[in-house]
Amino acid sequence: MNEKLLDRLEACLVEVQDHLRDELLPFWLSRGVDSEHGGFLTYFDGDGQATGETVKTLVCQTEMIYTFSSMHRAGLAEDKALSIAQQGVEFLIERFWDEQNGGWFWTTERDGSPLDTSKIGYGHAIAMHALSEYGMASGDLRGMEYATKTFETLQSLAADNLNGGYYEFFERDWAKKPPGPKGGDRKSLEAHMRLMEAFTNLFEATGALIYHDKTREMIDLIFRHMLHPEYGTGIAQFSPDWTPQREIMVDDTRSTDRDADDPEGRPLDNTIYGRNVEFAWLLTHAVKLLDLDVNTYRQPIQKLYDHCLTHGIDHERGGVYSEGPHDGPARGKNKEYWQQAEGLVGFLDAYMILGDEKYLDGYDKVHRFVFDHMIHHEVGEWFPLFDDRNTLLRDDMAHAWKSNFHTVRSMIQSESRLLKILM
Amino acid sequence: MNEKLLDRLEACLVEVQDHLRDELLPFWLSRGVDSEHGGFLTYFDGDGQATGETVKTLVCQTEMIYTFSSMHRAGLAEDKALSIAQQGVEFLIERFWDEQNGGWFWTTERDGSPLDTSKIGYGHAIAMHALSEYGMASGDLRGMEYATKTFETLQSLAADNLNGGYYEFFERDWAKKPPGPKGGDRKSLEAHMRLMEAFTNLFEATGALIYHDKTREMIDLIFRHMLHPEYGTGIAQFSPDWTPQREIMVDDTRSTDRDADDPEGRPLDNTIYGRNVEFAWLLTHAVKLLDLDVNTYRQPIQKLYDHCLTHGIDHERGGVYSEGPHDGPARGKNKEYWQQAEGLVGFLDAYMILGDEKYLDGYDKVHRFVFDHMIHHEVGEWFPLFDDRNTLLRDDMAHAWKSNFHTVRSMIQSESRLLKILM
Repeated sequence: MNEKLLDRLEACLVEVQDHLRDELLPFWLSRGVDSEHGGFLTYFDGDGQATGETVKTLVCQTEMIYTFSSMHRAGLAEDKALSIAQQGVEFLIERFWDEQNGGWFWTTERDGSPLDTSKIGYGHAIAMHALSEYGMASGDLRGMEYATKTFETLQSLAADNLNGGYYEFFERDWAKKPPGPKGGDRKSLEAHMRLMEAFTNLFEATGALIYHDKTREMIDLIFRHMLHPEYGTGIAQFSPDWTPQREIMVDDTRSTDRDADDPEGRPLDNTIYGRNVEFAWLLTHAVKLLDLDVNTYRQPIQKLYDHCLTHGIDHERGGVYSEGPHDGPARGKNKEYWQQAEGLVGFLDAYMILGDEKYLDGYDKVHRFVFDHMIHHEVGEWFPLFDDRNTLLRDDMAHAWKSNFHTVRSMIQSESRLLKILM
Repeated sequence: MNEKLLDRLEACLVEVQDHLRDELLPFWLSRGVDSEHGGFLTYFDGDGQATGETVKTLVCQTEMIYTFSSMHRAGLAEDKALSIAQQGVEFLIERFWDEQNGGWFWTTERDGSPLDTSKIGYGHAIAMHALSEYGMASGDLRGMEYATKTFETLQSLAADNLNGGYYEFFERDWAKKPPGPKGGDRKSLEAHMRLMEAFTNLFEATGALIYHDKTREMIDLIFRHMLHPEYGTGIAQFSPDWTPQREIMVDDTRSTDRDADDPEGRPLDNTIYGRNVEFAWLLTHAVKLLDLDVNTYRQPIQKLYDHCLTHGIDHERGGVYSEGPHDGPARGKNKEYWQQAEGLVGFLDAYMILGDEKYLDGYDKVHRFVFDHMIHHEVGEWFPLFDDRNTLLRDDMAHAWKSNFHTVRSMIQSESRLLKILM
């Protein structure tokens, strides 16, 4: 590596470390815990002030558990992070678990009274991911007990034993939701990627063969159905038999900053840059942990990174665009916070696996945008959204679907990769 | 229906009723219960004398539970049948359930000490079928509790969430068995048909939507992968991704009277008459219970019955041959007891669905062979095997893999169909 690139990466490392320890951690160690009812409140405006909103979502409760547990595992704010995670786990089990039907409610009131009692596959994947992370951090068996219960419930009530994979959108009693806007006839790359991630973590936490096999099944399932046959890029949504569908926003599930104008959904020829890159590095992590042959996955991983590098990066102003066709320039050019977060980890991983310095240039393009624009340094968290001219479009620091998950994980994972690269 | 056929069927009904009440029931109400240890001992020679063998198999323990429960539901030997089933359920739960890993052991010693601790998918299907039948007969919640536990265990540990369906051959801890003769790389029509049958019974017993959906998935799975694309006849074995394989006998699972000469297995172009006909009537039962449109299934059901009628029946000497190509005359011409049992029910069902009297002629050909040759009237049960010249090849009344399941069910189901047809 040339001296100049080395110097830039060393400067990046310092920025990452400082942001993680001096901005993100102080922000979250002093915010988010609901000291009155337990669990988390993750509504903060552009000044980091609580907005007063109180609906608790499964996504944010579990993401916060994951993040504080992962902080502990990374040796950051150890005892405090763990005790914050622990009270989150207690609230989650006490309030979100549906004793009658199994599975996790989707949202609750602040005090934990059930609000939206739907069962959403994606949320169950995050719950397994978070509870196994908490289990590894704490050794507290309650985390693993409920991770296992989540797995068994999903296997019993959400698996599609005809087509493979899992249905994703259910009523309280696990009856499938109606098709269309309620999602009952949709399967997604996102949920199956989160399941791959969750099963990987369950395998790391337990060493149990079943989670090794389930991780492998999710990898093979994604390769068989969910990547473009020619370009290898991700396809967002499918019918139950894996016919690609135009991606719609499913009602009442989560917001997105990639709003679709057409009620029929996004074009069929559409892929999401940050999702592709996130999949590539999660896949690499899974392949290593499962002790599979990394070489088998080199070419598909390269396709994913090269597509993002060629079409998904704003080479002029920095950052990762949202989405575009499987081949050709970006169409959706807003810059979402989570896609930047995954881009950082991904391009460092790409360099480590593939050895080409062009990925470090890619990293640098995203890093500069994040550190010069997206991070609200005075407050400590990241803005959620910019347009392609780097104009701020939203300034809230956290909301019902934005917690500390992507930002803190990105910094922890980037730091460890930068340290290895610079070693 | 012409007078002559009507007369013959009326005579058949009397024979069926007499055999069921005066031969089968007395045979089994005085035999089979292990009064010392509980559970069942099903080893009887040609005179109906206990042979002294004592290995208890999951298949026979659960089949006996099913049969005695079904006798109770059919209004036969009510209290006694139920108490016999109940002690079988108690022994099964006490001795065959693996508390540590979940699931049922494959064989035990007479006293219930585990012998072969393998987990076999086929056996778990029969267990769900038997325990839900016992639940419907008795109202005893223990049956449904363990039927549900079996379902959850199978979903968690045996499902193939990549290719659909279920793996079938496992070690005690649910690690997949090695490929080849241990079956670790095999899926079968038999196991998935038994699962369809079990899920149908679970739905009947509980009304729970999940069992409706699982039954439907098994029906669709069998149609998608396990029937010959042109002839609609059953294919016995597959690789995990549903590529048809030559049927091998899997080690240590069960004996068959269709012995294969070639260690590589049976020819790829091979189908089993009795299995096809059994599938057709179990499918019809499932379709009705699920309230699906029977017309959708009329043509495939007709193909299955017509294939057996054309190639599988010995029109000269009576009875159902064992197996043959998907199109063309029978190759394996021995006559197995269970294929006769399923043929009887099937051809009556075929007439009721399809309305063609040729199926009643088919019934008559099987009925006469069964009643004139296969049933050992003086003792009360059926001989297991004849050759194509109706020469007796084996004379034991029951053994490790032959209980009262096929014979009693055949008589109960044939009686109810004959009564409807003759009404």
